[in-house]
Amino acid sequence: MSSDKRVCLAYSGGLDTSTILKWLILEGYTVVCFLADLGQEEDFAAVEKKALALGAERMVIDNLQQEFVDELIFRGIQCNAIYEDRYLLGTSLARPVIARAQVKAAHKYNCKILSHGCTGKGVCCSPRKNSLSVIAPWRMPTFFNRFAGRQDLLNFAAENNIPVSSTPKAPWSQDAFADLRADNLAHCSYESGILEKPDMPAPKDVWTRTVDPLEAPDVPTKFSVTFREGIPVKLEVEGGETVTGSLELFKALNDIAGRNGVGRIDIVESRFIGLKSRGCYDSPAMTVLRLAHIDIEGMTLDSKVKSIMAWIGNEWSQCLYNGMYFSPERELLENSIIFSQKHVHGTVNMMVYKGAAHVLSRSAPESNLYSEEQASMDTLEGFSPEDTSGFIAIQAIRLEKYGAAKIQQGEPLARSS
Amino acid sequence: MSSDKRVCLAYSGGLDTSTILKWLILEGYTVVCFLADLGQEEDFAAVEKKALALGAERMVIDNLQQEFVDELIFRGIQCNAIYEDRYLLGTSLARPVIARAQVKAAHKYNCKILSHGCTGKGVCCSPRKNSLSVIAPWRMPTFFNRFAGRQDLLNFAAENNIPVSSTPKAPWSQDAFADLRADNLAHCSYESGILEKPDMPAPKDVWTRTVDPLEAPDVPTKFSVTFREGIPVKLEVEGGETVTGSLELFKALNDIAGRNGVGRIDIVESRFIGLKSRGCYDSPAMTVLRLAHIDIEGMTLDSKVKSIMAWIGNEWSQCLYNGMYFSPERELLENSIIFSQKHVHGTVNMMVYKGAAHVLSRSAPESNLYSEEQASMDTLEGFSPEDTSGFIAIQAIRLEKYGAAKIQQGEPLARSS
Amino acid sequence: MSSDKRVCLAYSGGLDTSTILKWLILEGYTVVCFLADLGQEEDFAAVEKKALALGAERMVIDNLQQEFVDELIFRGIQCNAIYEDRYLLGTSLARPVIARAQVKAAHKYNCKILSHGCTGKGVCCSPRKNSLSVIAPWRMPTFFNRFAGRQDLLNFAAENNIPVSSTPKAPWSQDAFADLRADNLAHCSYESGILEKPDMPAPKDVWTRTVDPLEAPDVPTKFSVTFREGIPVKLEVEGGETVTGSLELFKALNDIAGRNGVGRIDIVESRFIGLKSRGCYDSPAMTVLRLAHIDIEGMTLDSKVKSIMAWIGNEWSQCLYNGMYFSPERELLENSIIFSQKHVHGTVNMMVYKGAAHVLSRSAPESNLYSEEQASMDTLEGFSPEDTSGFIAIQAIRLEKYGAAKIQQGEPLARSS
Amino acid sequence: MSSDKRVCLAYSGGLDTSTILKWLILEGYTVVCFLADLGQEEDFAAVEKKALALGAERMVIDNLQQEFVDELIFRGIQCNAIYEDRYLLGTSLARPVIARAQVKAAHKYNCKILSHGCTGKGVCCSPRKNSLSVIAPWRMPTFFNRFAGRQDLLNFAAENNIPVSSTPKAPWSQDAFADLRADNLAHCSYESGILEKPDMPAPKDVWTRTVDPLEAPDVPTKFSVTFREGIPVKLEVEGGETVTGSLELFKALNDIAGRNGVGRIDIVESRFIGLKSRGCYDSPAMTVLRLAHIDIEGMTLDSKVKSIMAWIGNEWSQCLYNGMYFSPERELLENSIIFSQKHVHGTVNMMVYKGAAHVLSRSAPESNLYSEEQASMDTLEGFSPEDTSGFIAIQAIRLEKYGAAKIQQGEPLARSS
Repeated sequence: MSSDKRVCLAYSGGLDTSTILKWLILEGYTVVCFLADLGQEEDFAAVEKKALALGAERMVIDNLQQEFVDELIFRGIQCNAIYEDRYLLGTSLARPVIARAQVKAAHKYNCKILSHGCTGKGVCCSPRKNSLSVIAPWRMPTFFNRFAGRQDLLNFAAENNIPVSSTPKAPWSQDAFADLRADNLAHCSYESGILEKPDMPAPKDVWTRTVDPLEAPDVPTKFSVTFREGIPVKLEVEGGETVTGSLELFKALNDIAGRNGVGRIDIVESRFIGLKSRGCYDSPAMTVLRLAHIDIEGMTLDSKVKSIMAWIGNEWSQCLYNGMYFSPERELLENSIIFSQKHVHGTVNMMVYKGAAHVLSRSAPESNLYSEEQASMDTLEGFSPEDTSGFIAIQAIRLEKYGAAKIQQGEPLARSS
Repeated sequence: MSSDKRVCLAYSGGLDTSTILKWLILEGYTVVCFLADLGQEEDFAAVEKKALALGAERMVIDNLQQEFVDELIFRGIQCNAIYEDRYLLGTSLARPVIARAQVKAAHKYNCKILSHGCTGKGVCCSPRKNSLSVIAPWRMPTFFNRFAGRQDLLNFAAENNIPVSSTPKAPWSQDAFADLRADNLAHCSYESGILEKPDMPAPKDVWTRTVDPLEAPDVPTKFSVTFREGIPVKLEVEGGETVTGSLELFKALNDIAGRNGVGRIDIVESRFIGLKSRGCYDSPAMTVLRLAHIDIEGMTLDSKVKSIMAWIGNEWSQCLYNGMYFSPERELLENSIIFSQKHVHGTVNMMVYKGAAHVLSRSAPESNLYSEEQASMDTLEGFSPEDTSGFIAIQAIRLEKYGAAKIQQGEPLARSS
Repeated sequence: MSSDKRVCLAYSGGLDTSTILKWLILEGYTVVCFLADLGQEEDFAAVEKKALALGAERMVIDNLQQEFVDELIFRGIQCNAIYEDRYLLGTSLARPVIARAQVKAAHKYNCKILSHGCTGKGVCCSPRKNSLSVIAPWRMPTFFNRFAGRQDLLNFAAENNIPVSSTPKAPWSQDAFADLRADNLAHCSYESGILEKPDMPAPKDVWTRTVDPLEAPDVPTKFSVTFREGIPVKLEVEGGETVTGSLELFKALNDIAGRNGVGRIDIVESRFIGLKSRGCYDSPAMTVLRLAHIDIEGMTLDSKVKSIMAWIGNEWSQCLYNGMYFSPERELLENSIIFSQKHVHGTVNMMVYKGAAHVLSRSAPESNLYSEEQASMDTLEGFSPEDTSGFIAIQAIRLEKYGAAKIQQGEPLARSS
Repeated sequence: MSSDKRVCLAYSGGLDTSTILKWLILEGYTVVCFLADLGQEEDFAAVEKKALALGAERMVIDNLQQEFVDELIFRGIQCNAIYEDRYLLGTSLARPVIARAQVKAAHKYNCKILSHGCTGKGVCCSPRKNSLSVIAPWRMPTFFNRFAGRQDLLNFAAENNIPVSSTPKAPWSQDAFADLRADNLAHCSYESGILEKPDMPAPKDVWTRTVDPLEAPDVPTKFSVTFREGIPVKLEVEGGETVTGSLELFKALNDIAGRNGVGRIDIVESRFIGLKSRGCYDSPAMTVLRLAHIDIEGMTLDSKVKSIMAWIGNEWSQCLYNGMYFSPERELLENSIIFSQKHVHGTVNMMVYKGAAHVLSRSAPESNLYSEEQASMDTLEGFSPEDTSGFIAIQAIRLEKYGAAKIQQGEPLARSS
């Protein structure tokens, strides 16, 4: 068949993308289903079986976990990525890996069309599509008018033998209505349904990656994380294992932090399109590693470099959040991030306990920035206490002028009250 | 006596400033001692008695707690102030209040000279001095060469009847050697001594404002904080008190968070002068309020305004950290901060438990930014899912060009591996 | 007639909007035409006559020149607005004034619909529409497919008795094909046609606001501009007039600078939507005033304030360029801009001559920032040359550490070559 | 002689450094004089003769012009370096080259001490000194108290047979009193003396690098500059020469632009230490190249990359101005600058005429960012005019909310006046 009628569909096995799969077939397309394995909990065999049963030509399942950790998650760690001071970008980090692999699958299986279940409010992100076109049913009137509510989907499912989970998912689950899984190694995200009331606490059973801090172990877990060039390379658990592979290390930290209730984030965030939405995120390893990395940078980065990198990291975070991974600015920013980390080597000792992560101490023997002798006053070579007076006198020149102007303007700084 | 020989000395009662007091008197100065009451734990009567016994003409003790909370601490909360992503600026916030009051005291008691015990590495901060001059003994060779070590101070104390605490303070206490007290409402800071080894955890008994998370209550404390224009105006504790005065509210939060082990910060930071130093800080109320304020801004600030204010808040934090409070840039930044908070009204529900503070939910009924109906897709008035396709198509123009150039340069974005 | 079929159309009298006017009438709408007078060269009576002849119910012509200068142009001057280091935002400054007035006209004449001739690549900008809807024919398939080329427009004009200028406009004129006039007080812009070849110089007769520098007078014109709070309030021409009203002053400067060939800008810029386009702009008064304002800020703004305002001014420029005038961020930024200008008072003496504007000297008697005595070394009160050594010693702490690390890494800074 | 008494002095031959040279010798030092040749007008043989006559052991003259252009000047061009929107950093760019070479000379000739004639207000800049110490006489009380005025220097000169120029230099010349020459390839700077009155125009004969625009040729000079990776690599003068070596190209442009009166800058700037000072600068080639480079970036840099680089370039400029060349932040910033320029290839056609530089056209055949077809509406592949509506609708979400809130607060955006 001509590749013009061959579609590569991002397929999750849920109601949404199953509907799209069937609809595409009914519209005369041949469909290759694609699913990225980013570490989510999923019965991949069942998804494949379902796809083929519904008429897909093939189900491609691509394990991208290693790439996800090495190229996205750890880049985020290197620049202390965060969005609006809270969100650790779990979904944003996953998108580029998925998009890149889906394009590759399309090429491999001779599809000229990509399709996905992103709704109108989601942001997708794609690399150069190379003459691929896109069918996004949830943005097409012929589709979204036909499937205006969940019942329409269920009716279509019944008519077309699409199996529907007999135990309906919890109403806050995004899986109930949207097929874009946000469950991946970096986090598990929860939105919509009951969570759309931001004045209601998230129900206890929303969270799947972290235990309730109140039910976490009574004994803290202590461990150390070692960084080379800003990348976590070794995890040593007190009285326990030592882990060195990047993917294994990240998974082990997800486990340790999650068991201790660390990594819950509940926020109202600003979507790219300008709307506010409430999201709950479970990000155990991300939370711990971001804190550890900031700490080791305290030992190993010059203050001015730190301040420039704070700006760069913020730009990178915005770029990722807005779906702009495959952009020249991301490439520019990453070039700086990697360069800045050349000497970020060291070890951070931490503790997780009942919902909190604590830095206990750290060492960076290869860095000369911290010096115990210099930290105590007396021994700073080539520097005398008088120098500080000069430094302050010079700094004060501007302030004196400002104060004098204030007095002239009748606004003395020393309040009269 | 001519005001030219009258000194207003920042006096804490410790060994350092007691030495300076005596030394000034021996040098022929008349000394008015000044001490700001910013909520630190202090036996003020004992300090006064000691100052007078050593020969001070007068001991001025100024309660500045209200001003400290209203003008500095809450301004910091309004702009989510933080330094190097960790430090909540407790000392930096206190300095301007102290400096302003000391200048006022100098004028009141006819002193032409200010003096203080800041060492060469500390940053002080002063408003327009109005023809006042400064004696900073720790930066004067005649002084710092004479008192090269602690033993010199002790010898001088013995010779001059300066009482020395019989129970020597812990070696990590800054009170042991430096008179710049960092204990105030905002935090208690700990530096030097054993803490100068950043690879050693802080000893358990360093911390005075927060209990050890492992020893915190087994039951969480829940409360809500209400903001008007970004200022905390009400604290309601579940099953407990309601507090509304700014100073009272802040103290109550210090107590609640401290009892639950919340607010410990252990970092290596970059001093203004470029050195790294390790500091431990206990900031219970600051920690909770910063988190609460970020959360309520999520409900009430436009995303672009939020992003501009993140930059402004960072500038303000740098400005304070660097001792530049009495500067035109601080005035400019604060003007923006206050303006940005005009509609930051709402209530955040929180929980503190064994070292962690959690946001549980929030409400901001006066804001139209979050809307439950809009948060669910279908009902966004004047917005159709197709619009998103257009939005994405436009965004993609740049990305397509980038991707095309990459291919031309032989660096396809879809990796071949 | 019900207001649901009443349209307020931005009408310029050109072929585009005349076509839209006729098309709307044929579609059954009643049309109120609206044209903002922002100082462009226009035969307003002829436009009105044409609109009524084509069937408009009414032609509203609104003189907004004063508001344009006071609220937009001079705000841009206060923040040294510029886009991509070159473009002085003439079109961007005009849009909000037009949009606001058109909405007002719609309300006044009971129209529920706005319409305009913006094409797909233009950015429009509107305030809260208050239940008004928009018809943008150039973005509607039914319209843009029908009028796919200029000949379609001409055929429609012939069929519908739309008068077409008998002398065809120059091919580079935007008036030839687009009705969005960019001619206004701030500038005259030229795009498309022959200008789309960026490697071809703009033809000599493109420029209408400035004379060719080669043909400008052989004698320079000297004048001074006086600012209060960053706003130009007086223009004194050497040997000539003194002008004080804001609109009159701006027009006089357009004349003086234009006669001397000052203000031509020829660039390739990045459109909001990501495309590059070549534009030529004649901005005589803007060019002179921006330079003058930067100069007077040199005398009157603290260095750190200047650096913060450079960032704010850049944000404001981006905001205007992107059509985001009616946004919370613009309000926030303007609040800062106005605050920063409180003490920007002074006079700048300038010369324009054959295409260049030169600052010759300036004075700001109310500012204490520049001081002739301090500018010479010896007399800086409270500041000694030794202080500089201290200042430099402190600054050097970071640099020494960096240099030491470099040597350790085998990359000495002093090159061996 | 022990290297502890061997000094490497930055020596210019002027009164200041001649005095220092003699004074050092009288104090018992052996002095190696050092002078960097950065293209200034200087009789180097005469300087050498004078140094040796005054007792210097050796006069080292180092031609650093090539390094100056390649490593500093062109890096500045690549990032559009500018300080306070006006100053092209001629002195700041030269300092690191001088400092690095002086350190090298000190090592080569076994000196343990560096010395220079920088006064208290100047900023110097040095790489890792490697155990070198510094004697800065103008910051030492024993020196500056002895030489409190010019007459003291003249007396000392007379007593010590220091030849003094018989034709006294113009009073505004910095050579008259300070030995830090700011004359170099990048610019010639003029300060102090009569220029300290910022309300007086600079005297006509201050300027040495540029002719008076009023006396410039009546015929413009046209030329093109070609860039590779943001570096000027070819200059083609219409009807004239073609120059390709970096140093030769820069010198040729200095000549062409200078002859046409291009490059004069007269400003009041903020010194690093906070004072304002007035400076006049002649920077012909810098002015032309900065404009050309900005223009070619318009063709070749993505808009978002451009906006990030504007920030980076500003940081780099601040860094250089503040004497922080040998810093980790400069290295970080330059890494970004170089990366950003990878595809900045193209040719800019310009004209200089009577004080102004004009861009006439440009081409960048290797870039796909500008496209003549896309610049005209109709042909943008994969993009339809409807997409713009979607884009605008999404953008408007935030603005609608803002407008609605304004109405609720009684501040409608459409003014009622």
